[in-house]
Amino acid sequence: MESAAVIGVGITRYGRITDRSFAEIAFEAAWEAMRDAGVDREGVDLLVVGNVGGWSSEPLPAVTISEYLGLDGNGSMRVEAACASGSAAIKVAADAVTSGQSEVAMVIGVERMNESPVTNVVELIGRAGNYFWEFENFGLTFPAYYALYANSYMQIYGAKEEDLAEVAVKNHYYGSLNPKAYFRQRVTVDDVMKSRYVAWPLKLLDCSPITDGAAALIVTSEGKAREFTDTPVYIRSIGTGTGTSNISRRDDLLGFDAVRKAAREAYRRAGIDPSRPHRQIDLALVHDCFTIAEVMAYEDLGFVRRGEGYMLVKEHQTYIGGIVPVNTDGGLKAKGHPIGATGVGMAVEVVKQLRRAADPQRQVDVRNGVALTHNVGGTGHYAYVAIYSI
Amino acid sequence: MESAAVIGVGITRYGRITDRSFAEIAFEAAWEAMRDAGVDREGVDLLVVGNVGGWSSEPLPAVTISEYLGLDGNGSMRVEAACASGSAAIKVAADAVTSGQSEVAMVIGVERMNESPVTNVVELIGRAGNYFWEFENFGLTFPAYYALYANSYMQIYGAKEEDLAEVAVKNHYYGSLNPKAYFRQRVTVDDVMKSRYVAWPLKLLDCSPITDGAAALIVTSEGKAREFTDTPVYIRSIGTGTGTSNISRRDDLLGFDAVRKAAREAYRRAGIDPSRPHRQIDLALVHDCFTIAEVMAYEDLGFVRRGEGYMLVKEHQTYIGGIVPVNTDGGLKAKGHPIGATGVGMAVEVVKQLRRAADPQRQVDVRNGVALTHNVGGTGHYAYVAIYSI
Repeated sequence: MESAAVIGVGITRYGRITDRSFAEIAFEAAWEAMRDAGVDREGVDLLVVGNVGGWSSEPLPAVTISEYLGLDGNGSMRVEAACASGSAAIKVAADAVTSGQSEVAMVIGVERMNESPVTNVVELIGRAGNYFWEFENFGLTFPAYYALYANSYMQIYGAKEEDLAEVAVKNHYYGSLNPKAYFRQRVTVDDVMKSRYVAWPLKLLDCSPITDGAAALIVTSEGKAREFTDTPVYIRSIGTGTGTSNISRRDDLLGFDAVRKAAREAYRRAGIDPSRPHRQIDLALVHDCFTIAEVMAYEDLGFVRRGEGYMLVKEHQTYIGGIVPVNTDGGLKAKGHPIGATGVGMAVEVVKQLRRAADPQRQVDVRNGVALTHNVGGTGHYAYVAIYSI
Repeated sequence: MESAAVIGVGITRYGRITDRSFAEIAFEAAWEAMRDAGVDREGVDLLVVGNVGGWSSEPLPAVTISEYLGLDGNGSMRVEAACASGSAAIKVAADAVTSGQSEVAMVIGVERMNESPVTNVVELIGRAGNYFWEFENFGLTFPAYYALYANSYMQIYGAKEEDLAEVAVKNHYYGSLNPKAYFRQRVTVDDVMKSRYVAWPLKLLDCSPITDGAAALIVTSEGKAREFTDTPVYIRSIGTGTGTSNISRRDDLLGFDAVRKAAREAYRRAGIDPSRPHRQIDLALVHDCFTIAEVMAYEDLGFVRRGEGYMLVKEHQTYIGGIVPVNTDGGLKAKGHPIGATGVGMAVEVVKQLRRAADPQRQVDVRNGVALTHNVGGTGHYAYVAIYSI
């Protein structure tokens, strides 16, 4: 089966963006990706936009972006899978080129969350996915949902708040090395511990920020990639999973079945040994919307046994030089989490790393030429796990 | 290039649905499609939901529907391309099976527009697609946008209001023969002319209704289709186009460039002669959100020269027995227009017709075994034209 190939990437700086419109930030990422690929507007025959919206004033983002980019005439659509929208959009574009329906497709992930007041964003996310009963009755926001997971994890496996804080310390460290990251300052375990509680045991510095930003990819088929670039990065597999949208129906609050299913599929298709995936994977970008989420990702992806994920970061095994570097761009925690863009931004980092073109201080030693992205929507409502390779 | 194949179809009755939830109407259509295909829940490995939302209380429709259907674990996403969302979702599923990424995918188009007050729906649609300047300054609603087209068309080509009314007469006639249609009553030109003006020259009976409903398809690859059914219908091509979202930037108000581009692509890929497509096509389902839209569709699709579309329906050439029967299910006008479901509902009709399994009084004489769907988002913001064949 032919793979799709990424031939160009672009990304804005993530942050609170008030000086550019929705279409302008999409343009900034798209333009960088088109220049990177050496593709012009006429060369793109499909635009796939990953965007959630709701807080944005832009209800039909794909057509607005298409027009602003001057792509008029080409096909376009928006794809939404909550916080995994970016990865879902990549899948749509990858399938379009590998099926032969498109020659060159562009994926743009974009979100402008700060258009709405924070309380509005928090409420909209909290209501997402048939949570009406839980949201209305218990007032559960997303930090509160993940706090239930953190609480359960700490209770059952004996992890401490300080252990979760290690994830924030690592990801802020890499954010400090990434000029495109929202947060560039390093933090200590002590800083995290002293930050105010949002939903016990999660504190402000355990949470990813409400973020604006955009990221873009240009993809074509494996067979055509070398016509455009000497450094294509192939999308070897994309595994998908969906989970219940009611937290009260989960078997446990220690990980996500949807991720495990998506990972199994991604590993099988890419020929990765699921019992020791980190032996073949040079780096992983995982969905650390909260610190506990990164710890659970280590376990759901099979980097470590269940209940031992928190040890991995504590022992610096997910720093560069460890068994599998994770979130070398700062992750959702420090780079930021513009939800429709997040999955695309992960792919941008993976492509730069596999090309050995990341910022020098955070370049991974790419031995196998293989990387992983892990993008979760809701609390495991949607899961997309992808394997990239050179 | 391999085609996708439709192996099962299902549809709810369209209308104002107050006794079933969003997930329940999706279930009704999906269940019918699964029974039709002989596929159970475990057999579906990807769910693609066409839905616009905004007026609905359900912000993450794909996961809610997936869970209600018991598809937990399989991948899912929502696809949005305004009123063409259903066709965009079909494209995503078709590409997933022809690329080999999925074996069996389900498409569900669903919309519950009556959850919001009508004024709210009209405002949300009117604001869609960067219309802020036009909407805020001129108060243009969607009927008003299409009224500009009707006005321009009548002015330049000499069509009369009575000519546009003929589209409503035809589509209500076929609606009267379709048990799944919202409006089952026949209307006369006189009825249309006496209905109240919504936006001159468009009257209430020139407009499609705000509608609730769902439709579903099961698709697999051409190579696997006969494992499931003796009557597969193949998706031979899907052409796509995107147009400016500012009406003030259009070259003329007589048709849609995006549709012409999408049609060219669909014809080319399916081997249809673009100069006389109606000689190869047994029937067409077109996007008659307003009567003028169906007239423009005849011309944009090449069934007739520009400026002569209104004659086609006046001379009954788009009734069964004419040169190309159009909207044999009642169209958006009488069957209804639940916007995320509309493109999927068109495919349901096309599949039933090509199987010779439509309601007897409205079964087309399927000689070539070829049919077309034409689904437009906004005023030509998005266009999807597809060719189906047995």
